[in-house]
Amino acid sequence: MRAVDIIAKKRDGGALGSAEIAWFVDGLTSGDIADYQVAAWAMAVLLRGMSDRETIDLTTAMVNSGEVIDLSSLDGRVVDKHSTGGVGDKTTLVVAPVVAAAGLYVAKMSGRGLGFSGGTLDKLESVAGYNVNLGLDAYMRVVSQAGVVVAGQTADLAPADGKLYALRDVTATVPSLPLIASSIMSKKIAGGANAIVLDVKIGRGAFMASIEAARELAEMMIRIGEGVGRRVTAVLSDMNQPLGSAVGNAIEVKEAIATLKGGGPVMFREHCVEVAAEMLLLGEVADNPEAARMRVSELLSGGQAWERFVAWIGAQGGDTGQVENPDRLPSAPIRRQVLANDEGHVAQVDAREVALTAVALGAGREKKGEPIDHCVGVEVLCRVGDSIEAGQPLFVVHAQSEKAAQAATQRLVRSVRLADEAVELLPAVYEVIRR
Amino acid sequence: MRAVDIIAKKRDGGALGSAEIAWFVDGLTSGDIADYQVAAWAMAVLLRGMSDRETIDLTTAMVNSGEVIDLSSLDGRVVDKHSTGGVGDKTTLVVAPVVAAAGLYVAKMSGRGLGFSGGTLDKLESVAGYNVNLGLDAYMRVVSQAGVVVAGQTADLAPADGKLYALRDVTATVPSLPLIASSIMSKKIAGGANAIVLDVKIGRGAFMASIEAARELAEMMIRIGEGVGRRVTAVLSDMNQPLGSAVGNAIEVKEAIATLKGGGPVMFREHCVEVAAEMLLLGEVADNPEAARMRVSELLSGGQAWERFVAWIGAQGGDTGQVENPDRLPSAPIRRQVLANDEGHVAQVDAREVALTAVALGAGREKKGEPIDHCVGVEVLCRVGDSIEAGQPLFVVHAQSEKAAQAATQRLVRSVRLADEAVELLPAVYEVIRR
Repeated sequence: MRAVDIIAKKRDGGALGSAEIAWFVDGLTSGDIADYQVAAWAMAVLLRGMSDRETIDLTTAMVNSGEVIDLSSLDGRVVDKHSTGGVGDKTTLVVAPVVAAAGLYVAKMSGRGLGFSGGTLDKLESVAGYNVNLGLDAYMRVVSQAGVVVAGQTADLAPADGKLYALRDVTATVPSLPLIASSIMSKKIAGGANAIVLDVKIGRGAFMASIEAARELAEMMIRIGEGVGRRVTAVLSDMNQPLGSAVGNAIEVKEAIATLKGGGPVMFREHCVEVAAEMLLLGEVADNPEAARMRVSELLSGGQAWERFVAWIGAQGGDTGQVENPDRLPSAPIRRQVLANDEGHVAQVDAREVALTAVALGAGREKKGEPIDHCVGVEVLCRVGDSIEAGQPLFVVHAQSEKAAQAATQRLVRSVRLADEAVELLPAVYEVIRR
Repeated sequence: MRAVDIIAKKRDGGALGSAEIAWFVDGLTSGDIADYQVAAWAMAVLLRGMSDRETIDLTTAMVNSGEVIDLSSLDGRVVDKHSTGGVGDKTTLVVAPVVAAAGLYVAKMSGRGLGFSGGTLDKLESVAGYNVNLGLDAYMRVVSQAGVVVAGQTADLAPADGKLYALRDVTATVPSLPLIASSIMSKKIAGGANAIVLDVKIGRGAFMASIEAARELAEMMIRIGEGVGRRVTAVLSDMNQPLGSAVGNAIEVKEAIATLKGGGPVMFREHCVEVAAEMLLLGEVADNPEAARMRVSELLSGGQAWERFVAWIGAQGGDTGQVENPDRLPSAPIRRQVLANDEGHVAQVDAREVALTAVALGAGREKKGEPIDHCVGVEVLCRVGDSIEAGQPLFVVHAQSEKAAQAATQRLVRSVRLADEAVELLPAVYEVIRR
């Protein structure tokens, strides 16, 4: 086979054969196929599309390009979740211990924040001692013992996806549904997941702008799952405004703790209940959605989820004293309220602008490898649909300096749009797609 | 500007601005823009297309990426020609001296053969001493003195095109009309041409398969010419069967000599008359097509074109004794006739198969830089429309060994298709597009 012939076939709208896809992915992994050939191929895939069969073959080939984690010692009682990335998305911190408290296991390899999208590992590292760099043995020991483990990649999972993603990022070939779907699913499958709840975010603070695009991506990932024998459910959730109130790192951990203790922002809690309930359904510890939601609510209000959280953080080296007394988590020297200049109904709280403000404060990073500041961030005190009076606080900025707080304030004021007429609330979840 | 944004704009079907194209071509020339970004961009251009304005901007940017030859000392009496590449295409060897004999200058940078397509420089090097590596001073001296110069690139012309073409070749992004048109035109313009006759080949032995595609390419190049102030005429000619009889190097030179002496294959002569006549029209030494064709025929039959040929070859270091006694040109030890097995009417002589047979004999090369054998090749003795009897010779193979001749024979037999019914002749020229 020749790479140029495979590129030409896709360029002309043809469907690539399974052997061609496997050969191409092998070549891109080994470097035998040059980056410029992979880039031309990716653009052809983006513009010509891929059939389900091709997308499944691509996913399988990327899984086979590296190691695959074996979670069979957990007796099939493992459920994974994946978020397509959002703003203020601390969902894993809540749902993982809930699901573990229901008798399932959550063994999750997570990532770091980049650009407007936050990272679960960064948030967890707000807790002193929390170790994201586990070897495979430690990873399996933590999940067996605590029911939850959340770490960085412990093995060389889907290296083809890593190489392809790095190229797509600099060649304008990211927004291709088959490439996005196979990228996500290859990582999840290589991570050992048999049952996966996908949290597909929609809106200003997400990669998918419309519910139609998100639904198309979700259904494609569900079909990939079916194609490789994995059960997949997709939750399509809102990301036009930040999820919950806190956007940062330590402040998000505090919000997760409040939620695990039965409190927390109503919309965030609702979102967590939906996602966790779908995980219980996939894990077959609940018979129907209503029963699953009930069970999740009980586990949150009854303290069992909280106990699991403390056990998990402790098992992974985190300072449980800090999570039991969240005032001891890192906090910023400057806290400044941002007040409404006007009265009105909140029509927009731009999740992306809020996120980029938090990044500018130091809570995130523009480029991979940059350090972050765990204590800074933005608390969002208003939601779309709220009625606001002039002078009412809209945000609290957590900053290292007055200057940084001032810059953030100016940016945050512009992120909120008020309307004269009443505005409808945004839902937490638009729809759930089950198979 | 960022390369990824320019790629994304073209990916989404947008028209790139002049400044964006100039910046991108600068970056690809300097290497500041990575090969994989150029490759993704080229695929986006291939699949999304380019407007005339974009194609003109791309051509101009590629011209500006290197040196531009100044032919103003020749008083504007310069006419160039360019063939899109074919089989048995020794047209330049005939038309350049004809046009010089009519009082114009032909200063032409030509190329070498690759794959099925032959190269004028390879053919000329069949003549002992002929020097294709001229410096710019020698190049100008030869054309001033002999009226013709045909050499390899004497300066760093359109290096952006060179880099882009090399990438396109390995990323399946060659067959894009705007990329083909801008590539050809940038080289011609950088070479100093003000008036250009394009010989656009159509058929089995050409890059363009259909007359519609060839017309589209021709009209695009004419519009580019208009956009940058160059006069361009396009001749759309047949390349389903080889052009003339000889396919090789020394045997093609011999056929060109026969044509310059008033003989040669009828169809090849007709093709040369058409192309040369269009050059005389562009050079304004003939008033109308009929007068131009008459003048060309006179120059061929009257010996003036032949005298110019000898002067040119001599001025460029070639052994004029060889061209005056073509038997002294290199010749192959083995000559073997290929006979018809059957009777019938010739329906096809597959130009590409004949060319690849000649390449296999050693007359061409698969990869750049490989040496070639000047004395081998194939003489084609039949044409589409001919009535053939069993046992009649169809080809003469010129080979270095009996084994090579035998392999060529088997291949050539299959390149001819006979029909029971009478078959129409193929035209030499389908149409001429003048502005």
